[in-house]
Amino acid sequence: MPYISESRLRVRYAETDQMGMVYYANYLIWMEVGRSDFCRECGFRYSDLEREEQAFLTVTEANCRYLAPARYDDEVLVETALTRLKNRIVEFTYRIKSGSTLLAEGRTVHVVIGRDGKPRSMPDRYMELLKSKL
Amino acid sequence: MPYISESRLRVRYAETDQMGMVYYANYLIWMEVGRSDFCRECGFRYSDLEREEQAFLTVTEANCRYLAPARYDDEVLVETALTRLKNRIVEFTYRIKSGSTLLAEGRTVHVVIGRDGKPRSMPDRYMELLKSKL
Amino acid sequence: MPYISESRLRVRYAETDQMGMVYYANYLIWMEVGRSDFCRECGFRYSDLEREEQAFLTVTEANCRYLAPARYDDEVLVETALTRLKNRIVEFTYRIKSGSTLLAEGRTVHVVIGRDGKPRSMPDRYMELLKSKL
Amino acid sequence: MPYISESRLRVRYAETDQMGMVYYANYLIWMEVGRSDFCRECGFRYSDLEREEQAFLTVTEANCRYLAPARYDDEVLVETALTRLKNRIVEFTYRIKSGSTLLAEGRTVHVVIGRDGKPRSMPDRYMELLKSKL
Repeated sequence: MPYISESRLRVRYAETDQMGMVYYANYLIWMEVGRSDFCRECGFRYSDLEREEQAFLTVTEANCRYLAPARYDDEVLVETALTRLKNRIVEFTYRIKSGSTLLAEGRTVHVVIGRDGKPRSMPDRYMELLKSKL
Repeated sequence: MPYISESRLRVRYAETDQMGMVYYANYLIWMEVGRSDFCRECGFRYSDLEREEQAFLTVTEANCRYLAPARYDDEVLVETALTRLKNRIVEFTYRIKSGSTLLAEGRTVHVVIGRDGKPRSMPDRYMELLKSKL
Repeated sequence: MPYISESRLRVRYAETDQMGMVYYANYLIWMEVGRSDFCRECGFRYSDLEREEQAFLTVTEANCRYLAPARYDDEVLVETALTRLKNRIVEFTYRIKSGSTLLAEGRTVHVVIGRDGKPRSMPDRYMELLKSKL
Repeated sequence: MPYISESRLRVRYAETDQMGMVYYANYLIWMEVGRSDFCRECGFRYSDLEREEQAFLTVTEANCRYLAPARYDDEVLVETALTRLKNRIVEFTYRIKSGSTLLAEGRTVHVVIGRDGKPRSMPDRYMELLKSKL
């Protein structure tokens, strides 16, 4: 069973659209909140990976299935799991809920790149920390 | 061969992130620009569908593969095609380019719902207009 | 001394731009988070005002002075005070901080409108609740 | 009479909120579109200022008065004028219209900073180009 980190957020008015629901692109922002928290629970800040190692997790793929609408002021829970970890590739899977309702499911795939935009290996220290939660 | 609509936009500073590229969720906004223009080229405004028919194209699935980064001030071309059209389901496919570089490919699936949030059929007039570009 | 509500949030990657700081428009979103929480501490949800009373607090003026940059992953505190309250006009003032650093100061002025977009009075019950925190 | 640059954009669905209008923070993004175009009409790209000179126009103040709502799919015109230009300070003023309706008026004040975040002078070449449109 993979480790699951939990992020809680409240829907902002800015995140709604004229349909009265959360605009679909904003779920990808919530996934980012989820994987930031996941890293923190692994024992590092994603910003350290960038600052100390000049390593960046660029997104190469993102998917989301929308099952029920999120609305303004709803309390939302983002569950994040690390579902794949290779030298240069990291994949996270997300379940986004409000109460007992599953709002959306998603997945992002990332490649580790350097400041020059070229693929590189995940630095060892971070690799170990991530592995512990795989 | 499906019809392809073309939307041109220029990358906004707001759309970049500290990696110096466009933040990944913004590509989904560009897809929305693409399908708005696609509807306009079919002969209707998406806003009319909402206003006159109380029919809404809610998103049930979105995918994006990111191939090359878009940067501030780049001129971006969004190519949109209608790749599936059923009574209650509409699917668009997108190719996002800058010059001759393919930046991203994506797909969104939509269900037609009414003001009450329940699935309904696409109104006939709009169905015909969309069909002409399938 | 006016009542001050406190909202805590963590800077999202999505909120940064290629200058490596938070993009300036996002502070207005944080102000919205601040006034949502302010209403909640007054004893109502802003969404209730909209849903139950069909009363909307549209923004007629927004100002922000930026004093120090906010960065990704920073913990931000938004202090919100109600600084003016008339039948149809509400004004909030904000101080946005990170630790002991004042990042920004802002102000928003709102007019109460109905579903038809026309000005109307703030419903009595909400007026009383807001007055208690003036 | 100051020079006025004109930027045209179409309101995106993403820019609306559940009130059915454009969310107020998005006007600041449109102002950014306006000043990007203003620079281009002066004969330089703002991105060149950043890339070639390592000079950044950070925002120190932003104001907006909202007069009429913008709605999805509206064609919006942003008129931008340079209203103050000193060695280290640049001020732009904006009028945002849809057809003959004035939607909003705004102003942003910027300080020129270097890569280190410290104030510096506007590079000569850019100073001259901006002066020509004052």
